[in-house]
Amino acid sequence: MSDHTPQSAVTVLGLGPMGRALAGAFLDAGLRTTVWNRTPGKGRELAERGAVVAVSAEEAVAASELTVICVVNYDASDAILRREEVTAALKGRTLVNLSADIPDRSRSTADWASGHGIRYLDGAIMTPTTTIGTPASVFLYSGPAGLHQEHRPVLDALNGTHTHLGEDIGRAAAYDIALLDLFWTAMAGFTHALALARAEGISARELAPFAQGIGAILPPLFEQSAGEVDNGSYSGEGNPLTSAVSTMAHVVHASEAHGIDASLMRAAESTARRAIGLGHGDDGLTRMAEVLGRR
Amino acid sequence: MSDHTPQSAVTVLGLGPMGRALAGAFLDAGLRTTVWNRTPGKGRELAERGAVVAVSAEEAVAASELTVICVVNYDASDAILRREEVTAALKGRTLVNLSADIPDRSRSTADWASGHGIRYLDGAIMTPTTTIGTPASVFLYSGPAGLHQEHRPVLDALNGTHTHLGEDIGRAAAYDIALLDLFWTAMAGFTHALALARAEGISARELAPFAQGIGAILPPLFEQSAGEVDNGSYSGEGNPLTSAVSTMAHVVHASEAHGIDASLMRAAESTARRAIGLGHGDDGLTRMAEVLGRR
Repeated sequence: MSDHTPQSAVTVLGLGPMGRALAGAFLDAGLRTTVWNRTPGKGRELAERGAVVAVSAEEAVAASELTVICVVNYDASDAILRREEVTAALKGRTLVNLSADIPDRSRSTADWASGHGIRYLDGAIMTPTTTIGTPASVFLYSGPAGLHQEHRPVLDALNGTHTHLGEDIGRAAAYDIALLDLFWTAMAGFTHALALARAEGISARELAPFAQGIGAILPPLFEQSAGEVDNGSYSGEGNPLTSAVSTMAHVVHASEAHGIDASLMRAAESTARRAIGLGHGDDGLTRMAEVLGRR
Repeated sequence: MSDHTPQSAVTVLGLGPMGRALAGAFLDAGLRTTVWNRTPGKGRELAERGAVVAVSAEEAVAASELTVICVVNYDASDAILRREEVTAALKGRTLVNLSADIPDRSRSTADWASGHGIRYLDGAIMTPTTTIGTPASVFLYSGPAGLHQEHRPVLDALNGTHTHLGEDIGRAAAYDIALLDLFWTAMAGFTHALALARAEGISARELAPFAQGIGAILPPLFEQSAGEVDNGSYSGEGNPLTSAVSTMAHVVHASEAHGIDASLMRAAESTARRAIGLGHGDDGLTRMAEVLGRR
């Protein structure tokens, strides 16, 4: 007789850095955790911490009512899940796909799941591996609300914030892709700023406190800008596009004078100049969202 | 007899949004504030608050020991300052140029100032107009440390943080340009994320709280990444470039599937792929700073 109810067991497929972090958090929360990875050896440390390392994906899936998969993208998750033995083992069970990809892939996975009697939630992880198991982690879900509710006790073991965004299965991936757009662009901008600073004799550590200051003004600007964009008002008060492009051009000029590729800022400047050319020079930067989205 | 010592008077040249904010903060601090703008009419509201509106730049400059200029760039400040009458009026006085431009322009302005007996500090304002006069404002200066010390009592009237970065006159502009690189790229990324979200049926207000969450994780990442870059270690632990480019490609794919220009993310992805091609696929995103700066 087992003292484990289905609600206290979970299977994790995929043991890259994020999959290992998820499995580790489940173990720390005292859940019976079964793990599997395509290439063996990745589960050794988890096994020492009490995880059951399955010899096949179908065996792993059969061990728990809930399977969480987290691999590089949906090509990779399809390659695991759409094998006949695995699909059969998932029948009647719940699958949560936390891999990242475009919303269309979530929709096609939901179709496949529904065609094979698999209960399916799509999800996305919005914070780095180091946050998993801590209050700083952020998880998004979409799909059947009841299914999300049913598995909350297990998912909550990951700690952090778990938000169900709606029944539209593609919604978590849509938020994910928009937020990754922001994240990678901002981080690419930071690495570019470090390269430019270094060319000017400024070390990364010297620039960092001021870069952190810039980082700190972004969240309130995001909130204010979001209101403007939804209202269709694009106030340039204090910083019209005509003035913004002037400093964007300085960044391009200074970068290229040091032989540093400036395609990133050139892309931003091009959209800003396009907005000005369309007659929006007095508007603020938020007008770029509207111009980019114009059909 | 006047109750104003030179330390309690200041002249502001340029009354765009930032110039007006600076003059307003000086007035609020009780300083005798003289203002001038190339095109008239911009000083009306400041005059109602007690500012002296000069009829010419030379008259404005002659009214105070310290002149602060804040216009769109150094072409614009040169056009004002390098007129014979203005240059003559500045002789023996102190000029602080808070306009934004590339470091070379600060250096050439310092040469011009020294050739005409003008005491010169270069500066940059790192925060939006709305922060001026509040503790949230951030000012950077470079040039003679003694000169900065001498005028601190007046400059401190602007409130906020005032940092002297060193005697190298181009240093404030170099920090400015690197930080603007970060700021505009991040904001361009945010407007792009809003356009992509909207195409997916997500409003700006729905995305904003999560975008603020992304904004909140940036400052600690900046600090950690800066240490890596200075040490020449580029740890990809938890997020190697090979995995980052996968989600970058999703952003490009999803954007273009909606007809949204993706040049910004294509530029970031291209640098990441170049770093991978150079053999750094297991490194983290910070490797991009090193690859961008390679000669």
